[in-house]
Parts: sequence; C-alpha cells; structure tokens
Amino acid sequence: MGRTADYLNSAVMAMASAKEFFGNNGRDYAGNISKYYEYVRENDLLLTHTLINPQVNRGVGPSKQPDPFIAARIVEKNSEGVIIRGARMLATLPIADEIMVFPSTVIRSGQDDMPYSIAFALPASTKGLKFICRESFTSDSSYDHPLASRFDEQDAVVIFDDILVPWERVFLIEDPDRANKVNEATDAIVFMAHQATVRELAKAEFVAGLATLVAETIGADQFPNVQEKVVDLLLMAESMRGFINSSEAGARLNRWGLMTPDYVPINSARNLWPRVAPMMAVVLKQIGASGLMAIPPEEVLGSKVRPDFDKYYQSKLSEAEERVRLFKLAWDVAGSSFGGRQDLYERFFFGDPVRMSSAYYAWYDKEPYRQRVKELLHRKD
Amino acid sequence: MGRTADYLNSAVMAMASAKEFFGNNGRDYAGNISKYYEYVRENDLLLTHTLINPQVNRGVGPSKQPDPFIAARIVEKNSEGVIIRGARMLATLPIADEIMVFPSTVIRSGQDDMPYSIAFALPASTKGLKFICRESFTSDSSYDHPLASRFDEQDAVVIFDDILVPWERVFLIEDPDRANKVNEATDAIVFMAHQATVRELAKAEFVAGLATLVAETIGADQFPNVQEKVVDLLLMAESMRGFINSSEAGARLNRWGLMTPDYVPINSARNLWPRVAPMMAVVLKQIGASGLMAIPPEEVLGSKVRPDFDKYYQSKLSEAEERVRLFKLAWDVAGSSFGGRQDLYERFFFGDPVRMSSAYYAWYDKEPYRQRVKELLHRKD
Amino acid sequence: MGRTADYLNSAVMAMASAKEFFGNNGRDYAGNISKYYEYVRENDLLLTHTLINPQVNRGVGPSKQPDPFIAARIVEKNSEGVIIRGARMLATLPIADEIMVFPSTVIRSGQDDMPYSIAFALPASTKGLKFICRESFTSDSSYDHPLASRFDEQDAVVIFDDILVPWERVFLIEDPDRANKVNEATDAIVFMAHQATVRELAKAEFVAGLATLVAETIGADQFPNVQEKVVDLLLMAESMRGFINSSEAGARLNRWGLMTPDYVPINSARNLWPRVAPMMAVVLKQIGASGLMAIPPEEVLGSKVRPDFDKYYQSKLSEAEERVRLFKLAWDVAGSSFGGRQDLYERFFFGDPVRMSSAYYAWYDKEPYRQRVKELLHRKD
Amino acid sequence: MGRTADYLNSAVMAMASAKEFFGNNGRDYAGNISKYYEYVRENDLLLTHTLINPQVNRGVGPSKQPDPFIAARIVEKNSEGVIIRGARMLATLPIADEIMVFPSTVIRSGQDDMPYSIAFALPASTKGLKFICRESFTSDSSYDHPLASRFDEQDAVVIFDDILVPWERVFLIEDPDRANKVNEATDAIVFMAHQATVRELAKAEFVAGLATLVAETIGADQFPNVQEKVVDLLLMAESMRGFINSSEAGARLNRWGLMTPDYVPINSARNLWPRVAPMMAVVLKQIGASGLMAIPPEEVLGSKVRPDFDKYYQSKLSEAEERVRLFKLAWDVAGSSFGGRQDLYERFFFGDPVRMSSAYYAWYDKEPYRQRVKELLHRKD
Repeated sequence: MGRTADYLNSAVMAMASAKEFFGNNGRDYAGNISKYYEYVRENDLLLTHTLINPQVNRGVGPSKQPDPFIAARIVEKNSEGVIIRGARMLATLPIADEIMVFPSTVIRSGQDDMPYSIAFALPASTKGLKFICRESFTSDSSYDHPLASRFDEQDAVVIFDDILVPWERVFLIEDPDRANKVNEATDAIVFMAHQATVRELAKAEFVAGLATLVAETIGADQFPNVQEKVVDLLLMAESMRGFINSSEAGARLNRWGLMTPDYVPINSARNLWPRVAPMMAVVLKQIGASGLMAIPPEEVLGSKVRPDFDKYYQSKLSEAEERVRLFKLAWDVAGSSFGGRQDLYERFFFGDPVRMSSAYYAWYDKEPYRQRVKELLHRKD
Repeated sequence: MGRTADYLNSAVMAMASAKEFFGNNGRDYAGNISKYYEYVRENDLLLTHTLINPQVNRGVGPSKQPDPFIAARIVEKNSEGVIIRGARMLATLPIADEIMVFPSTVIRSGQDDMPYSIAFALPASTKGLKFICRESFTSDSSYDHPLASRFDEQDAVVIFDDILVPWERVFLIEDPDRANKVNEATDAIVFMAHQATVRELAKAEFVAGLATLVAETIGADQFPNVQEKVVDLLLMAESMRGFINSSEAGARLNRWGLMTPDYVPINSARNLWPRVAPMMAVVLKQIGASGLMAIPPEEVLGSKVRPDFDKYYQSKLSEAEERVRLFKLAWDVAGSSFGGRQDLYERFFFGDPVRMSSAYYAWYDKEPYRQRVKELLHRKD
Repeated sequence: MGRTADYLNSAVMAMASAKEFFGNNGRDYAGNISKYYEYVRENDLLLTHTLINPQVNRGVGPSKQPDPFIAARIVEKNSEGVIIRGARMLATLPIADEIMVFPSTVIRSGQDDMPYSIAFALPASTKGLKFICRESFTSDSSYDHPLASRFDEQDAVVIFDDILVPWERVFLIEDPDRANKVNEATDAIVFMAHQATVRELAKAEFVAGLATLVAETIGADQFPNVQEKVVDLLLMAESMRGFINSSEAGARLNRWGLMTPDYVPINSARNLWPRVAPMMAVVLKQIGASGLMAIPPEEVLGSKVRPDFDKYYQSKLSEAEERVRLFKLAWDVAGSSFGGRQDLYERFFFGDPVRMSSAYYAWYDKEPYRQRVKELLHRKD
Repeated sequence: MGRTADYLNSAVMAMASAKEFFGNNGRDYAGNISKYYEYVRENDLLLTHTLINPQVNRGVGPSKQPDPFIAARIVEKNSEGVIIRGARMLATLPIADEIMVFPSTVIRSGQDDMPYSIAFALPASTKGLKFICRESFTSDSSYDHPLASRFDEQDAVVIFDDILVPWERVFLIEDPDRANKVNEATDAIVFMAHQATVRELAKAEFVAGLATLVAETIGADQFPNVQEKVVDLLLMAESMRGFINSSEAGARLNRWGLMTPDYVPINSARNLWPRVAPMMAVVLKQIGASGLMAIPPEEVLGSKVRPDFDKYYQSKLSEAEERVRLFKLAWDVAGSSFGGRQDLYERFFFGDPVRMSSAYYAWYDKEPYRQRVKELLHRKD
C-alpha cells in the first residue's frame, strides 16, 4: 500500500518547509525537522505515527489518570536527549521504518500537562520499544483473501519503557502553545488531508469497479435498483475528485512559501467521507447477496471435488475459479475481518465524526451566508 | 430570480454555436436557431420551456393515446409555417417572454411518431396559446411570505389550439434522429446542467446561512447534533462548488468551437443533487421545531395585541418582529406551499432520479475501474 | 377530527381515576379533578392544552427571563381563586371548549420557581384570555384543499392578562414535586401516548392507501422501487398496530384501579414515530412527482377551459376531475402549508426527538440485556 | 444455537399437521410427512435445508442451463425410491442430523420442469452426499472470538451424486402445483417466520445490551448522540416484540386445526427486519470506534508483556482483560468475518428484500385504505 507512508511523508514535508515555526528554543528544532525530512526523503523511508493517549479515563487529563505514566511523557532530560515512558495508541503500520509521535489532542498550558507536550521521531526498531498488536487478518492465500493477504497494515499500541529520544530527533518540547497548533500552522493538515482524499478517491473507484463486475457476473446490472446503488458509489468517487480538483485549482503559496492546496474543499472532503464511505461495503453486500457465502477455500481447487466445483460454481459469464475469485475479493472488501477493519478505519480516520463536525462548524466562515439571508429579510420590495 | 431564464438562455447559446447541427433540410434551420439566439440576447428576453407530454397513459406512445392530439403535434404545414395542436406540461414560469418547445423524451423514427418531432419557439403572448396554471402560492405580504411573495414562478400546462409557428421559429421538424440527440450533440445539456448546479450551490449556501441564524437565535447552535445538521448543508454546498470548480478547471473547446465545462463533474452534480437537496427543508424543521408555528401574521404588527407580541415573541438575541421575520423565512423554505413546491422541484428538476441513475450508469465510463479490479485479481504476488 | 380532544380527554380520565394523587392540601384538589372530568365527559367537551413557556431565553429558568411575567404564573391568590399573568405556547386547537394548563417541563422546588407551579383548566371563552394565532391554512374549497379546508386545527400562543382561575378549577398549586410527576404518577402519559399511537396508525394507513391510489392512477404501481416505498408506509402502519396490540394484550390495573395499557410498547411507539413519520410526505412526493404540480384550482371546473381540462388532465384510469382531486389530496398531505405543518407536528408531537431518546434511554430497563451479555462473556466453553 | 433447527422443526410440525395437503397420490405422502415429524421430534434431531438452485444463469429455468443436471433433480424412480443428481445451494448448518430439500422458487407445470419438482429429507450423513463449505470462521479461542468460536454455522453447497431417496422420505414428487404452494397452504411459512422473529428479537436485545456496556465502559453513555443510537437498537427490539405479541394475541386455529399465529404482524416483521438489522453492526462501530482495534490476542495474557497489557488497556470501569473481552465480543458482532457473515445473513435470510417487498405489496390487503381515501374524496362537506 504505502498510503499511510505517503500521508505522513507529506506532513513531514510541510513541517520542514515551515521549519521557522519550530524555532530555536535553546536547541535547533527547526534544523531537526528539516534534517529529518531530508533523511526520510533520501532514504525513502516508510513512516507511521501514533496520536492518541490510552483511553483509561476519558473524563480527566493525562496527569490525573490512575498512573501519571500511562500516557507517554517525559521522565527526564539529559545531555543525550529525552527519556520517554508510557504508551500511545493507535499506531497503524508498525512495520514502518520510523515512528512519529506528535501531539494530537489539545494540551493545556499548565505545569501538570508540560511533560506530555513533545513531538519526536524514532526508528521503529529502537531497542526496547514495544508494539502490542491486534490479531493479524492476513492470510497465506491471495486467492482466498486477495486484500488481507497483501495489505493488512496491522494496528498497535506502542509502549515506551524509558526510551531515549536523541535531541536531534526532538521537534517540540514542553511547548503546549506550539504543540497545539503545529498541524494547522505548518499546513501539515492540508497535505495530510489532501493525500487522504486521493486515497479515498482511489478506493471509491476501485469498489465501484468491483460492484460493477459483481453485478455483471450475476446478471444483476440490468436492474434499476442495482444501477442506482453503483451510481451511489460513482457519485462518491466524483465528489472526492471534485474536491481534489477544486483544491488544486485553488492552490497558493502558503506563508512558508510552499504551494499548498486550497483547504476548504479538502477539509470538506475529510468531513464528507466518513458520512459516505460505509456505503462501499453495504452496496457490495446488497449486490453480491448470498453469492458472497458460496465461496469455498483455495484447497478445493486442487482437491477431488474440483469437477463439482467447476460444474456448480460457474456463472453465465465466467468459469467457476474466476467467479469465486471475484466474489472473494468482494467479500474481502465488504465482509471479512479485513473488510470490517477497513470500514472502521474509514469511519474514524480523522477522529470521531461528531467532533469533527463541531470543529468544521466552528471553522467554516458562515458569515457571507448569514449576510445574504439578512439582506433578503430587509429587502424593500 | 431569472434562474430558469439563465438556464435556457445558456442552452440557446450552446445550440446557436452548434448551428451546423440543425442543418439545412430544405429550410435554413441553422440560421433560424442562430437568429433566435441573437434576438433573445439583444432583447434580454426571459424564456420558459415545456418538455413533457401529458401523462394520460404512460404505457403507450403519443399516437396511441385516446386522442392522437393530446400530446402537442403537427396538424399541417403550409407556406407560412406549421400548425400545432395539443398540450405540453410542465411549463414553469409562464410569465416568460418566450416559450421554447423542444423534444425531451425519445421519439421512435416510425411514421406514427413523426408528427410529434418538432422544436420551435414562440412568444408566450401568442394569440390563442393557453396556460392552465396551478393555484398561486404568492402573497401580498413579504413579511409573512418573504419568498412566495416574490419568487413564485408558477407552473402550467400549455395548450396549443391550432397555433401557427412561423417557419423562422422552427428549428427541427419531422427529424427524430436529430431531435433525440439535440441536447447532447450541441452540448446544451452541459450548459443547462452547469447553470443548474450554480443555482443549487446558491440555494445550499442560503439555506445553510438560514439554518445557522435560526439555530443562533434560539441558542441551539451550541448542540453538537445541531452543528452536525448545519454541516450536512455546508458539505452539500461544498460538494456542488467542487463540481463547478472541477468542471471549469477541465473546460475545453467543444466540437463547435465553444468553451465548454467538463461534463463529468456536472453530470455528477445533477445526479447527486436530488439525493441531498431534501435535507434543506428537513434540517430547518429539525432546528426550528415548534418555533416555526409560533409566527403570527403581519396584521398583528399593527393591531392592539402588538405589545403582547413584542413581549412574548422576543428572543434572547432579537426583538419579536425580527425573530418572527426570520422564522417566517425558514417556514417559507421548509414548510409553506411555496417551500413544498421547491422541495418537489429540486427532487425532479431533471426528471425521475431512478431513471437518471440508470442513464448515468450506462453513460459513465466504468471500464478503467473494472480493469483495476481485474489487474488485482490476477496479480502474481 | 377531535383527535387532540380524545387525547386530552383520556388524560383527564386517567387523572380523575388517580384523584388521590392530587390530594387535599387545604383545598379539595382531588375533588376538583374528579368533578372536572365528569363535567367534560357529560358535556362532551373539546379540550386543548398548552405546555411550553415562551422561548425567550432557553438558558435560564422562568424567573430569570427579562420579565418574570413572560411565562404564565401566579400573581396572587384570593378567596375566589388564583390570578394568572403571562403566556404559554403552543396551544393547538384554540377553538376548543376548554383549555388545560398543566406543567410540562421540570420545575425546581426553590422559592423562585414556586409561582410557576400550577395546573388548572378554564373555558377557552374566558373573558380577557387572548390567543395569538398563526396564519390560517384553511381554504373555502374542499376540492382544492380536501384536508386544510376541513382540518386546520390552528396553533396559538395563549396570553393570560390577570385572569382569575376559580378555586374549583385548580388541580395543583405551588407544589413542584407533584407537578413534576403528575403525568407519570397518574398514568395520564400512558393514555395520551396510546391515543396518539392510534392516531398515528390511522394516519399511516390513510397515507398508504393514498400512495397506492396515486401509484395506480399513473401506472407506477408496477415498479418494484415504487412498491418498496408503499411497503415502507405499510410497515410503518403495522409497527404502530403491533405496539397498540401489544400494549392492550399486556394491559393491567394500575395502582389507582384503572385498566391501563402496557407502557413499554406505547413509549416505544412514541419514540419510533418521529423517526418514521416524515416518510409519509416523502413517499407521496416520490410517487406523485411533477403530477403534484399539474393541479389547477377549482375555478377551472366551471370555466371556459373546462373542455381542455377534461381532455388533457385525464388519466388512463380516471377522468380529469377525479384524477386532479386525488392529486390535490396527495399535495395537501405532502406539500401544502397544511401538509408542511402536519409533518412538523408529527416530528415534534411529544417534544424534541433527541431529548426524548435520552429520556427513553434512561427509563428503559437495559439490565436484563447487560446480564445476557455478561453471561456469554464468562461462559466456560 | 439450534436456531436454524427450531426454525425448520416448526415448519415440519406445521406440515405434519397439514398432512392431508400432501395427499396420497399413489403413495402415502401424508403418512410420510407425519412419520417424519414424529421421528424428528422423538429423536430431537437438528435439521438443515437447502432451497436455491445454483446461480449459473439466472435468466433461464433449470432445464435450460448448460447442463440439465446442475440443479438437483430426479434421474429415475425405482421400487426403492428416487435417484437425485445435481446441486442445491445454500445449506446453512451442514453439521445437522438431517437435510430437507424443499421447493422454494416457483416451478412451472410444463414437462421440462417436472424433474425438478420434489420435496424430501435425508440424513446429512447419507453416503455419497457432498457438502462444499466456505472457509470456516471459527477459532480455538473463545476469548478472541467469543461468538465465532462457538456459533459458526457454516454454509455449504450440497451435491447429490445419484443419491437414492427412499420412498418413505419423499413428500412431494412431480407435482408443481402442490410444490409451489406448500409453504403457504400448510402455514409452514407462518411458523418459520414466527420463529425467525423470535431469533431477531433475541439478537436485537443482545446487541442493545452489548452497545450499552461498550458505551458505559468508555464513558460514552452520557452523550445524547450515543444514547440515540442505542435507542435505535432498543426500538428495533421493541418493534419485533410488538409483532410477536400481536401475532400471538391474534392466533387462531388454521384450516388443519393447528393454533397458528396471525400472519400479518409476522409477515411485516420479516419485511421490516432486513431494513433495520444492519444498524446493529453500525451502532457498535460508531460507539466502539478505534477501541475495536486495540484488542490484542489471547496469547498476550500469558506473555511477558502482560504487565503492559494490564496497565495500558484498563478502563475506568474494568480491568484490561475484562475490557478487551467485551470489545472483542463487539468486534465479533460488528467487524470480524463472523460478524460480516451475520450481517449478510440478516439482510438476506428470507431472500432479496426488493423482491420480498414486491411480494408483500401484492399480498397486503390495501383495499380498506383505498376506500378510506375515496370516502374522503367524495365527502359532501
């Protein structure tokens, strides 16, 4: 895949081009982010990141948890660097070369929260770093699981057991103000969201193609209600394409001199996507129906029931092996554990959709629309 | 408003620039459309049109109805022009200067259907032309009905009682092949759909502003579920803007030499819109709630209960008159007869959404997506 | 109609049978409610009621508004009765014989809120009582507006300008504890909700019949997607019938000796209804489409264009007059101001659906379901 | 589970009580069904069944497929019984004791379709009978997969390779008329649908309990939008309970003397269920969010990272092991392959929802509703 990598690489690129933001607060943080970007770019490294503190008690801040070292934080600073203890969830792609730890949620400026305010990066292979992974969804058979066998990214909780982060890998420290605005101020969020929208477009196109093939294979493509569902997917793809084109047509140099897509369509894309993405699995289920269950495993191909398989699983348009291969792909998108995790991922990629809506509502400039309404209300005609 | 007018004017412009399409089949139809466009443009005329045959029996064609002269058709041709008898529905804006009668639904090439194959335009004030209108939704009070009092377009059935259409106003006649493709071949559909999308964007922005003001007036803007609903409207607006920007960024000269927006985003817009437009009224109702009923008519303002009105209808943010004015506007969008007709209009502007989906499904180039799926299915890894 | 009346009559009946609840706190409130019920029953009176305080500032209680006499409250008590000043919204059916004023929202027990704690009833014709009504939706033509011409209930704000309520019409006074639980403790809420569910069933059945006729008239009843939409309405009706049957099969004597329907299905009905009721108008619009606009007013029937009307508005199944009559009814349900107000009414009949959900969530006994889950989690197999 | 078994056992019970329907067409089919029911009941046997012909070409009947022996059919009849060749899909629960093969889709009475008209039952262990199964979703760990490890029913295609069905196990043969109406005429469909509704109620209650526990564990139960979603599940459960209660309150002796639930609520239940069942997985995903991914496998419990697990995966309300156990259950309902298959199963249990809607539309007695509308249309007031 490499999608997650592209996503973070674009963020590091934006941050490096905004290196002045990181400043030089006793140490050369601007230089650190800049050198880190070059290192990643020149070595073509794959990155992951981890944003959220463990969910022990959502009602209080990290310093008020049962143990103040549950959320990853600074233990001490010494001449070599910073010692980190505690955990972060949810690192996708723990097989990456590098792991970035950046602030995501807002940290207050009080002394209690200071030790949690840090941004850094480390090789994922750093000695002592632990990743506790979920069950793997992969498979040895690309016939049975055409996606899971190739693309299971894994998800993990990362545990820092007094891990040393060398100073040259520290980008922000004990600086809640900068920490809270790093993504917006550097436009990293714009590049991340743009890249995410590209991924979403690719996915919507792929699933629209898949739904078309499934419908055609079983002769369901002639029914208006089936066509309507595939069109829902095509419109989802075209909406995302519209946002991308619009953001690119409106690109401009940002304050750091970097050509940056227009954020309005891109921020709209990332708010629309979790509302529509779940349709992908739903449409495949609606079209594939019970055919998604009649898919025997690969071992049948080389077994003595192969002649039965060839006879009874053929379709009008394709031989049994081909037909089952297609339906297994549909199942891997719409129904397998891999597919279920994909659905979850798309619903929550940028966080809770309700909170995202509130943030979008606050951010969006509604004043011109209010004015238009007020003008009508007081028109003299 | 003038929206319907803009919409049709852009269609005539596209047709005139594609005048070769109309050809010179014994008479100078190319010249007719060209001159008609100039006439409309120079005199800044307002157009309406009428597309659909009366719905007497949907199961059979116009020549098989109880009376072959129910659908408007040619009675005879003479040296002055063509005599037309029968009706067409649904002409919106019968107060226009001109009425265009163009083919919309497919006509077969058989002899029976020949008399129904014609495209022409006439002044709406042509003697003998009858418009049977629905009940008017307008109002004398712009306080009580801020929209209906100004913008009720009316809808009518048009009846041709042996009306003469002079030859210079005929653009197509007894030519089913051209008739069936006139909108696509001239790109008139692209300009009409582009203009419709601009209207939809303006409407979505306006209603988003209105919903924001209603929520703020009653202090409901602080609730995440209310914010989420306004965001649904904002995303609807941004989707339409994305399609417009995308179609303009991808504009190219068409075969007739006219700079033409990219049709893919625009055709997507006109298919997405009827799926989302009904949210406008729904969100206003959900936010305004019973406040949409507590809106006494204008006569109360000058009556002896005015002091009661001022005391009991005020809100935290505004005086009674202002608050009620705002809620009456919301009602005129979401609940009045005018609003109900608007909702219907947006659902069916381009026709039945299910048939539109089927047409979009057939038209959309799904092959690249199919290919991408097939490549994955046969990857050797 | 009489629906609102039945609804309140059943509430008064429940309260009278629970007369001990009202007690004898210096005056015979139990006797008052009992005599009032007999009076209403014997004279077959039509009741309305009004529940909500004016929405001036939702953030603070009635005593903290700009004027403490905005919400209706006690001014003084004397030997004849209680003097009331202030307003209540939203009284539906102000043409009723009697108006009931009962507490709806929770009142705290502090001294400030005392004057707002009262329940009483008065003849709607009481001298000095003012109703400020919204615009009327009625019509002189039952052809043009088959529902609005007969059934517009009106909605009003009621203003008490130092109105005397005689002691025998007072049921509760300065008694927040009883006031806050009167509906639940007397089971009035069960009877009101049961009656409301009966109304909802009748409405769903009627609209299902109407949608069927509209579909048949234009030959759309053969399309699976149209059938699916009518079935949505039929299932809505059957759900309501299931709740009613279930509540009646589970009826039992309540603590006051009154045979009372089971509240669980009935409380479920009143929470499900606002989620599904909006489908009624939507389905009619989806099926009726542009046919809902081609409906000329009654005056056309007696005009010189009547022959045109008869010719062009006929359908396969019915003559023009009959067809238009049917479509006008559909419009009066789905699109006219009357219909728009009906839709709003059904969405908010028992209050804001989000708050209702929260109350239902808190009230519902979820413990047996939790237990079932816990048992599975700790099964030893 | 035994659910599928209960479902079929009730069908056999209904058929046996309607044994006269099967008649005595040369052989004692009435006796066969009667004896079969007693055999199943006395030996407490688990049944499965298989209804659908393979989907090779949906456009033509079984005799017109590439091979007339793709769909299971009669090869020959002899003194011992009937020889069957061909396949049937989709047998759920192939580990059952017995497999029933009954007609499901309509068979025309022509000679070509005769060989496909048969109803019989056989031990699933009959020599030569082949089941080709899908991939198993089960698991060795009831911690990791609390449902899949216990309840994966499997789904299979059944192949008859010249299998002898003894005459006493044949219930219908070469009798398309009876075959096409066996489910309705014997009321087997009523009992099957009633039992399915009971299953659906149990499921909805269970998932509502699970969603409640997940919300409480992470402190999300305080948010109105979360409460609203759990209420959606509770209302789904209460709707099903209303249908069941209603069908039982309306039970009557059928024509065969068997006390039979009222079919109207039960047929409504089976049409409503596929519309609402998908909410179960959706709500769990919406509430559980990324917590559904932070669930390491059982092996972590006994590993050296156990202390880390205990520290970082605890929640405010429960220890790590307990919390993860709960979330794994939610995942097994909402996201795992087992959960994905459950979602598919509930969507298609009784067949394609669109076709079911069409059948329900045709079956439902809409005439009383039509009449009510017509009465209003012609009221003289």
